[in-house]
Amino acid sequence: MKTIYVNETNYKEIIKNLNSRKEDFLSDIDYTVLKIINDIKEKGDKALLYYTKCFDKAELKELKVKDEEIKEALEIVDDKFISIIEEAKKNIYDYHLKTLQSSWMIFKNDGIMLGQKVTPIERIGIYVPGGKAAYPSTVLMNAVPAKIAGVKSIALASPPDENGKINPYILAAAKICDIDEIYKIGGAQAIAALSYGTESIEPVNKITGPGNIFVARAKALVYGKVDIDMIAGPSEICIIADDSANPKFIAADMLSQAEHDENAASILITTSTKIAAEVIENIKIQKENLSRRNIIEKSIENMCLILISDNLKTSFDICNEIAPEHLEIMVENPFEKLPLVKNAGAVFLGKYSPEPLGDYFAGPNHTLPTSGTAKFSSALNVESFMKKCSIIFYDENNLKKVQDKIAYFAEKEGLDGHANSIKVRFEDGKSN
Amino acid sequence: MKTIYVNETNYKEIIKNLNSRKEDFLSDIDYTVLKIINDIKEKGDKALLYYTKCFDKAELKELKVKDEEIKEALEIVDDKFISIIEEAKKNIYDYHLKTLQSSWMIFKNDGIMLGQKVTPIERIGIYVPGGKAAYPSTVLMNAVPAKIAGVKSIALASPPDENGKINPYILAAAKICDIDEIYKIGGAQAIAALSYGTESIEPVNKITGPGNIFVARAKALVYGKVDIDMIAGPSEICIIADDSANPKFIAADMLSQAEHDENAASILITTSTKIAAEVIENIKIQKENLSRRNIIEKSIENMCLILISDNLKTSFDICNEIAPEHLEIMVENPFEKLPLVKNAGAVFLGKYSPEPLGDYFAGPNHTLPTSGTAKFSSALNVESFMKKCSIIFYDENNLKKVQDKIAYFAEKEGLDGHANSIKVRFEDGKSN
Repeated sequence: MKTIYVNETNYKEIIKNLNSRKEDFLSDIDYTVLKIINDIKEKGDKALLYYTKCFDKAELKELKVKDEEIKEALEIVDDKFISIIEEAKKNIYDYHLKTLQSSWMIFKNDGIMLGQKVTPIERIGIYVPGGKAAYPSTVLMNAVPAKIAGVKSIALASPPDENGKINPYILAAAKICDIDEIYKIGGAQAIAALSYGTESIEPVNKITGPGNIFVARAKALVYGKVDIDMIAGPSEICIIADDSANPKFIAADMLSQAEHDENAASILITTSTKIAAEVIENIKIQKENLSRRNIIEKSIENMCLILISDNLKTSFDICNEIAPEHLEIMVENPFEKLPLVKNAGAVFLGKYSPEPLGDYFAGPNHTLPTSGTAKFSSALNVESFMKKCSIIFYDENNLKKVQDKIAYFAEKEGLDGHANSIKVRFEDGKSN
Repeated sequence: MKTIYVNETNYKEIIKNLNSRKEDFLSDIDYTVLKIINDIKEKGDKALLYYTKCFDKAELKELKVKDEEIKEALEIVDDKFISIIEEAKKNIYDYHLKTLQSSWMIFKNDGIMLGQKVTPIERIGIYVPGGKAAYPSTVLMNAVPAKIAGVKSIALASPPDENGKINPYILAAAKICDIDEIYKIGGAQAIAALSYGTESIEPVNKITGPGNIFVARAKALVYGKVDIDMIAGPSEICIIADDSANPKFIAADMLSQAEHDENAASILITTSTKIAAEVIENIKIQKENLSRRNIIEKSIENMCLILISDNLKTSFDICNEIAPEHLEIMVENPFEKLPLVKNAGAVFLGKYSPEPLGDYFAGPNHTLPTSGTAKFSSALNVESFMKKCSIIFYDENNLKKVQDKIAYFAEKEGLDGHANSIKVRFEDGKSN
């Protein structure tokens, strides 16, 4: 944990390395991942079963989860959890439904129609990590917007444990989200199978969901063949606080970020040296009672930063340069600062909007841009599962009026075939 | 040019190879491109000037285009062309303005506010190819939506000729679109400079625009550091026609596609053998008068396909599987077939809506998904230059009501640091 005094002239240098935590292209990992992808492309299910045995230690006969297994899982998961998932699902549904876009059309000059036909992507794959980090919330955050978009066919992939079982909480969440097609596959081999298909798995058009470095690199390498949501880096939080903030809350929220990953970043930007000192103290106290203390301590050592800034405006400038995945604003009148927020995945306003509220429950998506990519990208949303086809109609009269202009433009670009396509329609005065 | 009879059972096999025209990852080109990127990262302007001398044969002292050069260009370009560009720009502006999204908010339970803050990407780079294929329309199609989105800072990159000049039509279009920052750089070195910055070029957050294979691979390799619009493959058109269609128009439109590139694909899907024969005849006649006949003949040889299908429904199924960049529907009552269109970049309806109308003039963007990526992606649009930050606010009372549920969810995911972040806010009954 480092404490640094920052001002508007030195901050860019200080945070420069913060967003270069992602893996580079053409690393050794890429070659391993590329071999796995090629094996799946060539040998299909056989290679898939082989890698599942290698990496997940599971000897499977069938890759697809059976109805009985889903029923079993629903019996294991307690009713309280089911009802919480259902409530969270409703919140996620209500929020995302607001962003569903419609096809539209405009009419011009009594003979021109232009518009967009908005349609769902036909088939998607959701990747859900297994093992120690089995997150049923991932299922909700990916499946709900896809369902709202109207995606017809969803395949969920998650690695099995040594007994060949997928985590029952993941299966329960999948059932609640009406996903019936679930495969016991993980890692780069799962991404390859979803992208290229095998004997038993139909290929998808887009893959979403988080994963370890092998999953992330596999997604980067299949991008183009299929679409992907993003190449996610480690998680991060930025908290902007003035002296009205509660250091206990800040410490707790930084710790909740730190427990994700040794490379997860927790950054406090504050105008108050008093708050800074109290947060450091509170982090020390609170971390003692947390089960993932080992990860937390490494994460704090590596990626925890406390920046003491001159003024609130500079705090926001710094934050916009970091472009954090999560931003908590714990100052007086946090809403009045919203105009200053330019680059962030999600912003949590005030003392009672901690980040875990957004991870599980409030409604907005928890799949957010990391490593500074909030400068140019957004949370997973309904649009992520739709695409837009432009619609163009001109009647004869309207094309005739502009034929010379289009032909002239085309000829200036050296494309007389394009000009010909216009001219041929009118060369006999009025062609059919 | 091949003519093939297709039906609903054999078409998938026939079109299987059509969408695998894109370059693979980790090809030899990637290593060349990666070397260029690393050189620019390390040596900045010096490397940029070196590569510009190597590849563009231009010895430059300054990379940035001067005001005098823009003035000069405006004198070279004729008034008729300027006025056509201005009319096209207005059409593009009007269409794209319809898609500008606003920030929004919803209110729940007298204490919950959720929404999205929609903001422009701060700085973008537009790449415009030079040389023989100097397309001022590219400038319009990229700059206009970016301006509508509210992008503050736009850098345009285009390779110079041997005299160190950028094509005057490109400069004129840039001026009309209020782009003042123009650099004489091209190829992978331009993409690297825009992504990482040099002494004289500030880095951007997103790069859009077409380019040759080096530009395309460079964009793929910098993706993640910056955003990109797409990795474009060769252009393609699919025309669905019944016996009401005019074979002369179809031939002209296929030729306009073929003149782009030896790998550009022109595909006719028709239920009429008569139309098929007449289109072949018309292609032979019309191509004789086109200046890019050499490219056209190779393109027709390589990538021209005439599919004769059983019925119109199968024609659309085939087309959806191809997911063409451009789709022309030349059948009776083309609008009634719009529900059958699932995957296409843009659809042109009827006899008087040829593809070049969309390339230059109608308003919708001509930057469209190629190589089957219309299955999951859309035309460049205003949204391409914006990002959305989720907004989450809960007041004390509303968080208190759901605190147990969130903490329970977090604990089930093994993240007690997340549970702690909720609990710490209420542990003393009512904390500050």
